[in-house]
Amino acid sequence: MNNLVKSCVLGVSLSLPLAAQAADIAAGKAKAASCAGCHGANGISNNPMWPNLAGQKAGYLAKQLRAFRDGTRQDPMMTPMAKPLSDADIENLAAYYSSL
Amino acid sequence: MNNLVKSCVLGVSLSLPLAAQAADIAAGKAKAASCAGCHGANGISNNPMWPNLAGQKAGYLAKQLRAFRDGTRQDPMMTPMAKPLSDADIENLAAYYSSL
Repeated sequence: MNNLVKSCVLGVSLSLPLAAQAADIAAGKAKAASCAGCHGANGISNNPMWPNLAGQKAGYLAKQLRAFRDGTRQDPMMTPMAKPLSDADIENLAAYYSSL
Repeated sequence: MNNLVKSCVLGVSLSLPLAAQAADIAAGKAKAASCAGCHGANGISNNPMWPNLAGQKAGYLAKQLRAFRDGTRQDPMMTPMAKPLSDADIENLAAYYSSL
């Protein structure tokens, strides 16, 4: 029983990072077409006031996209861009930019 | 007179980027000691939820630090870090991280 509990805990511990890696980079790249106008075709932005996204931490990117979508972070340009995103869109976009 | 106006416009145009470059990278590096715990000694963060700052656009970094300081962007860790920063501190920190 004790080993069963340990196995379950180990199983949960292992499944969390695996789930986070299940994001679809190719889908993120396709979705990123509407981001490229400001953040650049390769995630290097065209304006000093807009952040580079290339190589940024995926967890941070996803957290910020959710914050824009949910209104806890406000920006006149990013709020409307993030509003229609699904959770999967957000994970895919974050994985794509993080991979660059 | 026309040439004088042109010269003034040119002078103002040239002075804006020069003013932006007047930030003190060495002072920014010294000030960044308290940022390194989360954002890494070289601006690459230790946690997927915290952003890399190395090579980020200086204008964007300064805008976000001002937003944290002034309360227009809220974060339980960054708000208290940014509160005591002067405008010069912010420009120097932004220039330092952008230079990495």
